[in-house]
Amino acid sequence: MSRDERFTKEAAALGYGFDGEIKIGGNYVPLIRDGNHVYVSGQIPRVGNTVVFVGPTGTEVSLAQAQVAAKVCVMRALALLQRSLGSLEHIRAIPRITVYVQSAQTFTQQSEVADGASEMLFSILGSAGAHSRTSVGVLQLPKNATVEVDLIATVE
Amino acid sequence: MSRDERFTKEAAALGYGFDGEIKIGGNYVPLIRDGNHVYVSGQIPRVGNTVVFVGPTGTEVSLAQAQVAAKVCVMRALALLQRSLGSLEHIRAIPRITVYVQSAQTFTQQSEVADGASEMLFSILGSAGAHSRTSVGVLQLPKNATVEVDLIATVE
Amino acid sequence: MSRDERFTKEAAALGYGFDGEIKIGGNYVPLIRDGNHVYVSGQIPRVGNTVVFVGPTGTEVSLAQAQVAAKVCVMRALALLQRSLGSLEHIRAIPRITVYVQSAQTFTQQSEVADGASEMLFSILGSAGAHSRTSVGVLQLPKNATVEVDLIATVE
Repeated sequence: MSRDERFTKEAAALGYGFDGEIKIGGNYVPLIRDGNHVYVSGQIPRVGNTVVFVGPTGTEVSLAQAQVAAKVCVMRALALLQRSLGSLEHIRAIPRITVYVQSAQTFTQQSEVADGASEMLFSILGSAGAHSRTSVGVLQLPKNATVEVDLIATVE
Repeated sequence: MSRDERFTKEAAALGYGFDGEIKIGGNYVPLIRDGNHVYVSGQIPRVGNTVVFVGPTGTEVSLAQAQVAAKVCVMRALALLQRSLGSLEHIRAIPRITVYVQSAQTFTQQSEVADGASEMLFSILGSAGAHSRTSVGVLQLPKNATVEVDLIATVE
Repeated sequence: MSRDERFTKEAAALGYGFDGEIKIGGNYVPLIRDGNHVYVSGQIPRVGNTVVFVGPTGTEVSLAQAQVAAKVCVMRALALLQRSLGSLEHIRAIPRITVYVQSAQTFTQQSEVADGASEMLFSILGSAGAHSRTSVGVLQLPKNATVEVDLIATVE
């Protein structure tokens, strides 16, 4: 199965569509090519016009839900890369992802939330999905999103 | 109008001067050249010795004020680049900016704050100011600053 | 004294050992080589199985303790680089470090905490330890860690 086929399969498994416009929240570009790197802007779990996971993890949102939110963020990033590159097959590596988790004061499982993002990268990209990672717990995120993920991809 | 002239004009419009020393808060360098990239350290809205916007957005600081704070952060970053490169004309792209917004618990317009930073980059650099962006809401920032911005510039 | 000898000396001065497994908290890689760059994942002050500094700076943890926590994070990053590269002598530069400080609401000395990280980089790497830096105050960090540091190293 190609990476693009796995992307379609994972999107179906999540139950969300990533075919429409990938809306961004401001005056910037969703991704930018810089030599053989592509910097993808911070993605929140927005599908169409709806942010599908909002509020802090640990109180309003469970760990399991936040993990799905992280997966949706990664799917958006991959959808943007797929459209820009033509196919996910052109990705060679993901040197960095940063996972920001809107957290309740006492919630300390940010790494476990970020595992949702990591699993999706490995599932779709295989060994090219290996990445360094930083996960932190923040007070708020744009549009009250539960998770935000940005990443850098190395491309052919 | 050259980028350097636009920088001077925007500084005048803000009513702040960026001619003096660009002070930094610790034992590091304000920017570092790495091949054809320049990494600029996180900039808070400090002008001379004064942090001109302090406190959380949404309570002590309004959205409009935080947008100006984001602009001041970008002006500092551009001032550092201008001095290091000789002219802003040597900037080819800004692959990444990250905008950290000191936020009240319920403030969720971090993207709108970051638009202040983005607008300034486009205003001064034109199409070379296009950038990917991540904006997050944090509990605190150095010296109680309202906003902090870091960025990577690609240069000739 | 070589950088590797200085690393050993600083580890002894801290009173922590970095010889064992450098555990990470999830499904990702501790560092990844990308051309002549190495991206090191976010490091918390974990030594063996224990996170040696937990809780927010400014209340449960003092500034001085948080500075040591930042040093331990950097030592972990350097230990990972040393193992991957064979020797710290192969590091040419550290273009970026980001220092996330778990902060009490009113704690605003994130730059001073980050100075602990910066000092360690200069102490061990000399002029190759010069770096750009961003320090922010966050609500929480994985495993309730007091500090998290990630970095990018340029290598030969």
